[in-house]
Amino acid sequence: MKIELSLLFFVEAIGTIAFASSGAMVAIKKQLDLLGVIVLGVTTAVGGGMLRDIIIGNVPPALFKDPIYVLLAFITVMLLFITVRMNQKFLSGRHMETFEKIMNIFDAIGLGAFTVVGIDTAVLAGYGTYHFLIIFLGVITGVGGGILRDIMAGQTPYVLKKHIYACASITGAILYAGLMNRINADIAMLAGAAAVIIIRLLATRFCWNLPTAVKKQ
Amino acid sequence: MKIELSLLFFVEAIGTIAFASSGAMVAIKKQLDLLGVIVLGVTTAVGGGMLRDIIIGNVPPALFKDPIYVLLAFITVMLLFITVRMNQKFLSGRHMETFEKIMNIFDAIGLGAFTVVGIDTAVLAGYGTYHFLIIFLGVITGVGGGILRDIMAGQTPYVLKKHIYACASITGAILYAGLMNRINADIAMLAGAAAVIIIRLLATRFCWNLPTAVKKQ
Amino acid sequence: MKIELSLLFFVEAIGTIAFASSGAMVAIKKQLDLLGVIVLGVTTAVGGGMLRDIIIGNVPPALFKDPIYVLLAFITVMLLFITVRMNQKFLSGRHMETFEKIMNIFDAIGLGAFTVVGIDTAVLAGYGTYHFLIIFLGVITGVGGGILRDIMAGQTPYVLKKHIYACASITGAILYAGLMNRINADIAMLAGAAAVIIIRLLATRFCWNLPTAVKKQ
Repeated sequence: MKIELSLLFFVEAIGTIAFASSGAMVAIKKQLDLLGVIVLGVTTAVGGGMLRDIIIGNVPPALFKDPIYVLLAFITVMLLFITVRMNQKFLSGRHMETFEKIMNIFDAIGLGAFTVVGIDTAVLAGYGTYHFLIIFLGVITGVGGGILRDIMAGQTPYVLKKHIYACASITGAILYAGLMNRINADIAMLAGAAAVIIIRLLATRFCWNLPTAVKKQ
Repeated sequence: MKIELSLLFFVEAIGTIAFASSGAMVAIKKQLDLLGVIVLGVTTAVGGGMLRDIIIGNVPPALFKDPIYVLLAFITVMLLFITVRMNQKFLSGRHMETFEKIMNIFDAIGLGAFTVVGIDTAVLAGYGTYHFLIIFLGVITGVGGGILRDIMAGQTPYVLKKHIYACASITGAILYAGLMNRINADIAMLAGAAAVIIIRLLATRFCWNLPTAVKKQ
Repeated sequence: MKIELSLLFFVEAIGTIAFASSGAMVAIKKQLDLLGVIVLGVTTAVGGGMLRDIIIGNVPPALFKDPIYVLLAFITVMLLFITVRMNQKFLSGRHMETFEKIMNIFDAIGLGAFTVVGIDTAVLAGYGTYHFLIIFLGVITGVGGGILRDIMAGQTPYVLKKHIYACASITGAILYAGLMNRINADIAMLAGAAAVIIIRLLATRFCWNLPTAVKKQ
């Protein structure tokens, strides 16, 4: 846990931007107005950490005491809103494809960073020996914001349908939790985050699927 | 914070009645039965305070220790249910318009009262120096019940669409938080609540709108 | 509260299996894939207890410290998934009827067990004198998992529509809370649980209904 704090801040910032952007895009496509876009964008970005903190009794959640990521999410959302407002063809234009590709990579980095940070927070709070708990907290930090976004926007949570998204987080969380007391903590953390990012990116590329119970026709 | 407690109780009671009524109306229109109407009505009335208390670790939430507002919400819901049940034309009748006008004013008063009470609770719990936190808690106390109502009823939260509802709460919360250490606390509280109520009522009257990113045709 | 722990474990296990199964069936019918089925099944089984623990500040919730019921829910979900996957006609076949009948009984037992366990947990945490609180916690332990399941699956919570489900839990909770200091605690607990189970089963059999405000044509 001695990884350069600046590196950790940097990857968390990237994740915050990606998550805020995904929440804002859902809201924009639903024709919500400025406030709805802000609420959904910020909730997606910081909601996972909030759920984690409530579950371990770390209240008020960190995001409220030091709202740097809230501010970053807010700025991201405003920039995106203004861009779409100024350029009404942005959503269907050719820049959109590039934008989505970059955001996909950012999103993978964010999922990796949030997952390992969630585990770290739980360990620092003294729950290191509860393996199921710390893995769950890593995953909920990673995917919780997206779940809140989907529930508020009234759609079936993405994580229930796009399996591999959560699978990447779960795999990385198990890896980090398993390695953290065996090898150098920094390397374990990097390995966990890297596993999340790689699985997440490969899955997008090759459209991995998990089976459904009733076979699709 | 030395405002006559009886005044505070009175405005909170008005808010409870209005919020319980709004929750019950959603349930009645959705053809939910008696229990559904009670659950949705009471949740709308006391849900915001419950979320606030969970976020600051004030558990069990105040509503459970002294369920006076739960009781008030319950009575409101029962009266409304019986009224509609006895008079099947109530929902489409001419009394409905008067009822909705009164409830709109009550709702504005409730939003104002809940917002400042939420801030007060957070300050009393020792979080006065976290400005973002206390403003957020004021707003979530004001709009949280409605968010829970809409999520449970399966509709996009009203607050995401009817922007100005939350904007009124946010403006009043910022005003109260900004004034509370500069002028007499009671006057700051009244100013905050008044700002919420006035913005909320004017918005209904003049149908203020916030912009959407994609311009409506 | 001295009932044989093994009996309590046994009825809680039955409830866990039934609740996990109900969550998994919702997910399977919604064509969610393996991960979605697991998440929804496990959440339905242990979600009520998690909400209860968060509300009384018993964090991290018990399920994380000793994930025996999580494991049991997981195994239930996997078995059900594999059964449906192997036998594609299971959902429409004649075994389905028997399966649903058994699960209906299990579900009633689970609702009874979870309701009284929820009250016990609250009393042990020192809230025995807050009657509204302990009754609410009993009910939320019983029906909370189903509420989370329905919110995540994007359907109006079953408990809002199938009234009698919550009514059974409420009646049993009031009975147990009322009797616990008057008669032998074990007998009070059994009476509360039995009331839930009987009301729940009779309601299924005779299709009891609560009134709606607007009469159905």
